[in-house]
Amino acid sequence: MSDQRSVLVVGAGLIGTSVALALRERRHHVWLADTRPSNLHDAEELGAGVPHRGETAEIVVVAVPPASTAQTVAQRLRESDDATVTDTAGIKRRVHDDVQALVAGSAHAGASHFVGGHPLAGRERGGPRRARPTLFAGRAWVLTPGPSASADALSDARWLAEECGASPLVMTPQEHDDAVALTSHLPQIVASALAAQFGSASDAVLELAGQGLRDMTRIAAADPEMWAQIATGNSSPLASALEGLAETLRHVAASLRDGHGEAGVTALVEDGRNAQRRLPGKHGGAPRTYRIVGVLVPDEPGQLARVLADTAAAGVNVEDLRVEHAPGLPVGLIELFVGPESAGSLRAALTHNGWSVVDEETT
Amino acid sequence: MSDQRSVLVVGAGLIGTSVALALRERRHHVWLADTRPSNLHDAEELGAGVPHRGETAEIVVVAVPPASTAQTVAQRLRESDDATVTDTAGIKRRVHDDVQALVAGSAHAGASHFVGGHPLAGRERGGPRRARPTLFAGRAWVLTPGPSASADALSDARWLAEECGASPLVMTPQEHDDAVALTSHLPQIVASALAAQFGSASDAVLELAGQGLRDMTRIAAADPEMWAQIATGNSSPLASALEGLAETLRHVAASLRDGHGEAGVTALVEDGRNAQRRLPGKHGGAPRTYRIVGVLVPDEPGQLARVLADTAAAGVNVEDLRVEHAPGLPVGLIELFVGPESAGSLRAALTHNGWSVVDEETT
Repeated sequence: MSDQRSVLVVGAGLIGTSVALALRERRHHVWLADTRPSNLHDAEELGAGVPHRGETAEIVVVAVPPASTAQTVAQRLRESDDATVTDTAGIKRRVHDDVQALVAGSAHAGASHFVGGHPLAGRERGGPRRARPTLFAGRAWVLTPGPSASADALSDARWLAEECGASPLVMTPQEHDDAVALTSHLPQIVASALAAQFGSASDAVLELAGQGLRDMTRIAAADPEMWAQIATGNSSPLASALEGLAETLRHVAASLRDGHGEAGVTALVEDGRNAQRRLPGKHGGAPRTYRIVGVLVPDEPGQLARVLADTAAAGVNVEDLRVEHAPGLPVGLIELFVGPESAGSLRAALTHNGWSVVDEETT
Repeated sequence: MSDQRSVLVVGAGLIGTSVALALRERRHHVWLADTRPSNLHDAEELGAGVPHRGETAEIVVVAVPPASTAQTVAQRLRESDDATVTDTAGIKRRVHDDVQALVAGSAHAGASHFVGGHPLAGRERGGPRRARPTLFAGRAWVLTPGPSASADALSDARWLAEECGASPLVMTPQEHDDAVALTSHLPQIVASALAAQFGSASDAVLELAGQGLRDMTRIAAADPEMWAQIATGNSSPLASALEGLAETLRHVAASLRDGHGEAGVTALVEDGRNAQRRLPGKHGGAPRTYRIVGVLVPDEPGQLARVLADTAAAGVNVEDLRVEHAPGLPVGLIELFVGPESAGSLRAALTHNGWSVVDEETT
């Protein structure tokens, strides 16, 4: 696709500026709009595009906070004749409903030019200075055309996602919101709630925290205001997901209190294990089985690199990698996730090179 | 400590055999006992020690399943005159209470020779074949002397933990159980319950699963029977922890339903963020701030090693590392966690070497 297209990005924060940078790398024409002059200035300085002076764009990307997305989309639909308008908000049903209400009765084509969008990228911190053209590379980008959206508008939105290196996925706004309530919003609230249980714990208790707890509370380092907007914008599906999980936990607690804990916990851990196997593995492909080869290394610069150089020299591809922390000792455990066919030869190669291979396990 | 000591390990599973192997590496004398001949055979073949024929040991380590721990401890206290007896069960209060009841009225010194223990190691799969002498290296090893435990017994138990490379931590049985209910048992049940919510989810929903959800459900790949034993052995503290978390989740759900979600979610995410900062970092030290430098690499053997070799050449120590999965694309995002002082020079060095440095963030 060598055709140069013209795109107006409204909202030069992290997401908007990253979209603009990705498009600029592909040599498309990009105009920028933002009510905050500092964002506009930063984005322009990064080479994300030039300020919009009313020129006509083929595609308008609205990348403003969720709460003002529908208003901005409706305004751009009114002002932009035939342009396709899309957005990047992490909630979709409310945006669609509000856009419909705002453009109803308008003389323009209105909602037929709008296709909702949600790139599944984004970091804990925002702002144009953190933008990168590769932010969406390899990520899913959900597109939510409403019933009146035109085929051309959907095609434009799909083009945008692909130009940014993402994989477009089409679903309805409600399907999207129900899905992210489970996959994104529920885990966030659970991580925060789990971490919050340690707010009044003593230091001695915290010393027993292991890798499992650390993995499960990592995303608790999130922005409270951003999550308040997301959660309230998807309140009903999220509340249902939270109630479902709370009910499961209460049920297990009750079984422990009334002496039926063995059956209750066994059933839950079995259900969880079966469901966990369904979660997609690397590259969104089917989950697969790995072997874990553990290597105990001194905590010095370059040890990890040397382990991995020896692994590469053995012709073994590392599918995933985890560094386990060793409380109290200056030693780290590196866990290499490799295909089952490679575990034996990797183990032999590392041992031969003098590494302390400490464990091996299937996941 | 060059003194050779004699230890009897009762139960040659993963934990017992690993203890035995660690002691054999330090040239101590180890006898093994197990009711299953195959375990005994495997452990002996691995060099973990020789079968026990009634010889007198200085220390007895009971490493049998939690449900039979107290019975075995009491039996060994009766049979072993002056030996210190310790165990490795992941629950402590019930073991202590049952041991007290079993040895009450005995003619022997009984409970004064017993010190409960819990090495915080162990893998999802058990058995002597997975044992390693380094299993406890750098891990915490909780010791729970009862009120009647002698100073010598505590000293022996502490010696055992240290010979295995672990860091001993002394607390009461109840303190231990309350702590692991929060740090270990609660996260396990939450991971299983969270994963179980996806049991009936469609494939389209699962495609939106991101790294956060994967991190939070990793330990859901656990053994249902083992966890049923652990959970029922610590039922009251675990039930309280589950009820506390369920109440928090229900409270957030209610605030979302009645229109006060913004305040509810903001407060919870803030609480979680503050508590998460208290969780110990690497080596059990104070949590510290890292910068994350992201590198986008093709998914080919050796790329990770090359990134890390370039990182080491720049003199930068990687504190932690995460491989992010790129759904749909053969590209991986490697996130390097480094000290704030190193982020700038690492970024420059990697860019200079032609890497695509995609992001940078503080955690």
